[in-house]
Amino acid sequence: AFASLFFILISITTFCLETHEAFNRVINKTETVTTGNETGTQVAVEVETEPFLTYVEGLCVVWFTFEFLMRVSFCPDKRDFIKSSLNIIDFVAILPFYLEVGLRGLSSKAAKDVLGFLRVVRFVRILRIFKLTRHFVGLRVLGHTLRASTNEFLLLVIFLALGVLIFATMIYYAERIGADPDDVTGSRHTYFKNIPIGFWWAVVTMTTLGYGDMYPMTWSGMLVGALCALAGVLTIAMPVPVIVNNFGMYYSLAMAKQKLPKKKNKHIH
Amino acid sequence: AFASLFFILISITTFCLETHEAFNRVINKTETVTTGNETGTQVAVEVETEPFLTYVEGLCVVWFTFEFLMRVSFCPDKRDFIKSSLNIIDFVAILPFYLEVGLRGLSSKAAKDVLGFLRVVRFVRILRIFKLTRHFVGLRVLGHTLRASTNEFLLLVIFLALGVLIFATMIYYAERIGADPDDVTGSRHTYFKNIPIGFWWAVVTMTTLGYGDMYPMTWSGMLVGALCALAGVLTIAMPVPVIVNNFGMYYSLAMAKQKLPKKKNKHIH
Amino acid sequence: AFASLFFILISITTFCLETHEAFNRVINKTETVTTGNETGTQVAVEVETEPFLTYVEGLCVVWFTFEFLMRVSFCPDKRDFIKSSLNIIDFVAILPFYLEVGLRGLSSKAAKDVLGFLRVVRFVRILRIFKLTRHFVGLRVLGHTLRASTNEFLLLVIFLALGVLIFATMIYYAERIGADPDDVTGSRHTYFKNIPIGFWWAVVTMTTLGYGDMYPMTWSGMLVGALCALAGVLTIAMPVPVIVNNFGMYYSLAMAKQKLPKKKNKHIH
Amino acid sequence: AFASLFFILISITTFCLETHEAFNRVINKTETVTTGNETGTQVAVEVETEPFLTYVEGLCVVWFTFEFLMRVSFCPDKRDFIKSSLNIIDFVAILPFYLEVGLRGLSSKAAKDVLGFLRVVRFVRILRIFKLTRHFVGLRVLGHTLRASTNEFLLLVIFLALGVLIFATMIYYAERIGADPDDVTGSRHTYFKNIPIGFWWAVVTMTTLGYGDMYPMTWSGMLVGALCALAGVLTIAMPVPVIVNNFGMYYSLAMAKQKLPKKKNKHIH
Repeated sequence: AFASLFFILISITTFCLETHEAFNRVINKTETVTTGNETGTQVAVEVETEPFLTYVEGLCVVWFTFEFLMRVSFCPDKRDFIKSSLNIIDFVAILPFYLEVGLRGLSSKAAKDVLGFLRVVRFVRILRIFKLTRHFVGLRVLGHTLRASTNEFLLLVIFLALGVLIFATMIYYAERIGADPDDVTGSRHTYFKNIPIGFWWAVVTMTTLGYGDMYPMTWSGMLVGALCALAGVLTIAMPVPVIVNNFGMYYSLAMAKQKLPKKKNKHIH
Repeated sequence: AFASLFFILISITTFCLETHEAFNRVINKTETVTTGNETGTQVAVEVETEPFLTYVEGLCVVWFTFEFLMRVSFCPDKRDFIKSSLNIIDFVAILPFYLEVGLRGLSSKAAKDVLGFLRVVRFVRILRIFKLTRHFVGLRVLGHTLRASTNEFLLLVIFLALGVLIFATMIYYAERIGADPDDVTGSRHTYFKNIPIGFWWAVVTMTTLGYGDMYPMTWSGMLVGALCALAGVLTIAMPVPVIVNNFGMYYSLAMAKQKLPKKKNKHIH
Repeated sequence: AFASLFFILISITTFCLETHEAFNRVINKTETVTTGNETGTQVAVEVETEPFLTYVEGLCVVWFTFEFLMRVSFCPDKRDFIKSSLNIIDFVAILPFYLEVGLRGLSSKAAKDVLGFLRVVRFVRILRIFKLTRHFVGLRVLGHTLRASTNEFLLLVIFLALGVLIFATMIYYAERIGADPDDVTGSRHTYFKNIPIGFWWAVVTMTTLGYGDMYPMTWSGMLVGALCALAGVLTIAMPVPVIVNNFGMYYSLAMAKQKLPKKKNKHIH
Repeated sequence: AFASLFFILISITTFCLETHEAFNRVINKTETVTTGNETGTQVAVEVETEPFLTYVEGLCVVWFTFEFLMRVSFCPDKRDFIKSSLNIIDFVAILPFYLEVGLRGLSSKAAKDVLGFLRVVRFVRILRIFKLTRHFVGLRVLGHTLRASTNEFLLLVIFLALGVLIFATMIYYAERIGADPDDVTGSRHTYFKNIPIGFWWAVVTMTTLGYGDMYPMTWSGMLVGALCALAGVLTIAMPVPVIVNNFGMYYSLAMAKQKLPKKKNKHIH
């Protein structure tokens, strides 16, 4: 149990280091992409990550592999724990690096394509962030809340989807009707060329984001917009308190649990 | 009762299919409109929906008609249920397709105009979404909440309307006063040409949407904007909890009801 | 008491009419202003309101005067009520029309200036909206809430003012520091030329409006922006529930009161 | 104790005066900067604050110094109070003025650089605002709440950081995948050049600010945007009520305390 605690502390430190480095690495990578584009090789974009960052990344992956193997080999009584989604995430977050290193040796067009695909799959490395859930109480509470509120989440998503569908349709027709008299000259500009584009607007309006990349320009459209904003406020305000209550419950439970002796807490966990 | 359950399950599946297909169809339709515009025929826009989608749409309408007729003929004890708004929506959502098919045979200018009108009326097909309320508990809860909170809704709308009226007037005068010294040269640009335009801004500001299509540009206008945003937050925050409480009540009621045996629940429903 | 009830019902109807007409009148007025501008007479803008609207406006004012005089003369036991702010608003909302009519007879430059001033003072006519508080329970509840929550309002305003002051200063310096390396060439564009301009940005950010008319463009500025948005959410979220609770209390009180016999309610009121 | 009360009242008045004057001074300063820039001296910007404002500023600083010294010398029993952060802020807020005055005598390049640095450090003067916490109950309640809710704050920040990290990565890849077909021609415009830029977007979206300076332009990006807005609403909605509850608790405590006789309250404080 003590070794596990040590692991956790080290893991947090490495994680912090790793995210910081990932941060830098990504900038470099994409900047090289842009300059690579400018030098003319547009189809097959060459990506040269800074060696130092690749090394640190490698070190982290080695550490995570070690930690992962340790947890697999030294804790045989936690088999059921190993089958959990967190450990699958651990594995998936490690895998791409090894594949990438292995494929870099090859130089065929196919390997390059696979590398290009892997570069996109690098995305899964962000999943390492979920390793944090093991170490922060709040994140575990969040996880519990999300699992307990799937019904309410579905409800929220269905409400939003319904609202989006209805208001996207309404805004499309409202803008078309409003713009009709000027439609003959074709001069009247509208952002709502089709309903799916309206989906995005409805989402942005119902969450009260309001980017301003598209907005109604006719009186009927503005009326729909006002209704949509109002409906959005209510739609989001209604199922959220249920989820928030769930969170509050789990949070106070976790706070109460934390006040019990640490060792006992570890055993339970 | 068992047949009704089967109907419900099939209906959900067809509905999902139908919305997906409607999605595709709408893109096609409007895209054709745009290309039709580009080829020069601006006044009488020709709309050619993809045949496949029309067929699927037809299939769905046939199914809905069948379901509707079934419900009418096989459930004579549910007459009062049939008089409900949901069944009227069912009927209205089916009607336009048959009218459109019937009118497509004719080729006169009048028929074309009616078709153009019907294309707008296609909009009612989105009402089919309300058929979902029969199948999702959450939507039924939403419906109950909305019916129970009409008073609070009116209050919210009245509050908003009041705020919009007051702040639209204030922003209009604030911008005019603020812009006065430069008004002589006419160079100062303001978004608030008249009060009704200010209505839209006030709605966007009070719901904290903030599209950014229009915003105050004078100090007095900015002060009004700050007040408006603050008033909006309070205006919306005040009646919403009452509605949210209603929703919470109906939701926990529905949750409790769901835990009763399914059959009994069906009977009640 | 019965006559008063009759007055209230009539007044609601006239008010609805009046707001609708005010709506139309304002459009006309400003449109005439713009066309007046386009014909070249920029300094002394001629405003010609549509005669019909002036007549309806006059009719309404006559009615309001009658109602006001009635209330003054026929209800001598309500003297203290007459001294209330609502009756002062009644008087102020009627006054400008008579002044305007009186001054229109004169044609000197001074009278024109006074008319120009009165056109701005027309703004007080929007105050007539507060007459509604007499007739809607919700608005009276809102009034009670606002009066009971002045402390919390002050708190909210102080919190916001503090946040705005701090973040406006921070964004100004953050943008200056972030833009320093490029400042030599003067090419780097920033929206935050001075701190007062930052005030507006801070207000827009803290209320999560986000018009997008100005936004940070440096990393340090974006950090300040993120902090500001977070602080804004908390600043507004903290005193609002206290005000909302007050509203909920008064609202349930008013709901309970409404269930008592109407006549008794009238007596109390 | 009575002298302290007197000090507090005077201090509020001076503070109000001082902030007003700081307001004016800053405008002047930056305006001079801009004109200085336009006359060509871009590297070494000359800043001439209006003498009147410098005098008022000096007067205020003299007063604050006097108050500070008084508090140090006349209240030796409040040593532990003097070690509090508020008194350090008092000292730091006074210091820069004396340094600036002292350095203005010198005319070397080094002194100028120090002055330029001090002009940035003037920023600490805004800290004087925290002196208000001594005089407003609400601000003291806010302070108590913030100190009591550090855990929840950390949680909120961790939630947001997590969400920002995940959604910045998702939007970056979503926009790249969505823009791939057009990437060959390089014509497709995207705002998400690298992940850190996505951080800003994710923050703006999760707080539902939505400046509109950058927004997704592909279908996959819009889907990520919708998810991000939804996640943001939940992320912020979940820990905020805990903080708000803390505030409510301290606020009602402070309200109850205020109802005790003022003198006793002073003793406790």
